[in-house]
Amino acid sequence: MFFLIGLGLGDPKDITVKGLEIIKKCNRVYLESYTSILPCGTEALEEFYGKKLIIADRDVIEQDVDEIFYEADKLDIALLVVGDPFGATTHTDLILRAKERGIKVQIVHNASILNAVGCCGLQLYSFGETVSIPYWTDTWQPDSFFDKIVANHQRGLHTLCLLDIKVKEPTLESLTKKKKEYMPAKFMSVSEASQQLLQIVERNPDTCITKNCLCVGIARVGSDTQQIIVGSLSKMVEYDLGKPLHSLVITGPNLHPLEVEYLEQFKI
Amino acid sequence: MFFLIGLGLGDPKDITVKGLEIIKKCNRVYLESYTSILPCGTEALEEFYGKKLIIADRDVIEQDVDEIFYEADKLDIALLVVGDPFGATTHTDLILRAKERGIKVQIVHNASILNAVGCCGLQLYSFGETVSIPYWTDTWQPDSFFDKIVANHQRGLHTLCLLDIKVKEPTLESLTKKKKEYMPAKFMSVSEASQQLLQIVERNPDTCITKNCLCVGIARVGSDTQQIIVGSLSKMVEYDLGKPLHSLVITGPNLHPLEVEYLEQFKI
Repeated sequence: MFFLIGLGLGDPKDITVKGLEIIKKCNRVYLESYTSILPCGTEALEEFYGKKLIIADRDVIEQDVDEIFYEADKLDIALLVVGDPFGATTHTDLILRAKERGIKVQIVHNASILNAVGCCGLQLYSFGETVSIPYWTDTWQPDSFFDKIVANHQRGLHTLCLLDIKVKEPTLESLTKKKKEYMPAKFMSVSEASQQLLQIVERNPDTCITKNCLCVGIARVGSDTQQIIVGSLSKMVEYDLGKPLHSLVITGPNLHPLEVEYLEQFKI
Repeated sequence: MFFLIGLGLGDPKDITVKGLEIIKKCNRVYLESYTSILPCGTEALEEFYGKKLIIADRDVIEQDVDEIFYEADKLDIALLVVGDPFGATTHTDLILRAKERGIKVQIVHNASILNAVGCCGLQLYSFGETVSIPYWTDTWQPDSFFDKIVANHQRGLHTLCLLDIKVKEPTLESLTKKKKEYMPAKFMSVSEASQQLLQIVERNPDTCITKNCLCVGIARVGSDTQQIIVGSLSKMVEYDLGKPLHSLVITGPNLHPLEVEYLEQFKI
């Protein structure tokens, strides 16, 4: 059996009781380590589970799934993922690949940023399409997500912006070489995302999104060090919310009185 | 301290380890029983926690919060809610009421239908605004949610439809009486929701939503008896997905190849 188990927001104790029981009985337990980041570190998990974890990085998940599925028809194999198992396309694909091989699959759901973003007090049912903000380079500055933020705003909806993560990205120079070299991991901050957004706003002065739009910056949601700040987009640039992961919300134009009251706690 | 703890999808073991540890040390533990339903029953939870639960129904949550908060400055009080704590406005309001009283609050997140809907293979980032479909009566047939489904579809997005729940609703006759009488609890099925939607579709023949739109019916997500069916809106009417809770997804017009491949498993 192949188990795909959500770890939730990243503290070892955020796992469900169901998930923990499965891990304890599994023959091999992989930790998916490239679509998100585990704030607590692998050792803390291993200690809590009393079990050795095998790191499954990008190369393993995308090119070497047969390693993960080896003897999964006879043994119990788990892959642990931060958040909910369906938070990344990669995992949906893995489930299909397992089923193709005749391997039974069980999913254990958990919290993800998609519902935990409610911690800022914005109503989950007033969010439109979620967008991802990618790191820009000098030559590659995509901004198609901006249209989605505008469309959400026009419909009176908030936008959750997921911020880019670069883990085990091969360097440009090593792409053509036999031995790949990797860039250091980086995680986009609320400040960095807001800087990129401000640049797009400047190039698009005629949309409903301006530097004065009310935004919410969220860091390390669900942890003891969770931080939430509320202010204009231009204010977001100035604040350092510390360690990853960060998320940014662009609020819709008309807040519910309860949303206003809740956000008040986090005003900068 | 006041703890608001998400129970996830409803099996006793869907609680997180963090949540379970808190429950075990609490002086009083309430179970919120009107914004959702606990599929496993209260007794199963009590047995698993080794703790008596106090049912907090609509009257308590909306009118009698001081009972819940009694001595919360000195004791540890928990309120358990199905799904994630921020799934209902009521809970956000409760947190504000606690803070007004100087009571410290801690949240324990968990999975909710908003992310667990990914189990059908539709990409979570391709969902637009979530809508709620209310039970119609002979004289009250609101359909404003339909415009939102149309708007999502026009933008190429899926719509998650949350289906109505009626728990401890006073009967019309007893509203003016001193002693309230309540209607039996009811939970909208995928079939009932689809019937109402079909009626709206017939009245609005010029939108992009037709009886042939591809839909996904989901029942008891995350449980051992989870069921998923995929078919046209008119087909959804014919199938009985059994016990609650049900949810319905109206898919967007252009599915990703991976979504098509995943949905294939559940075609009726």
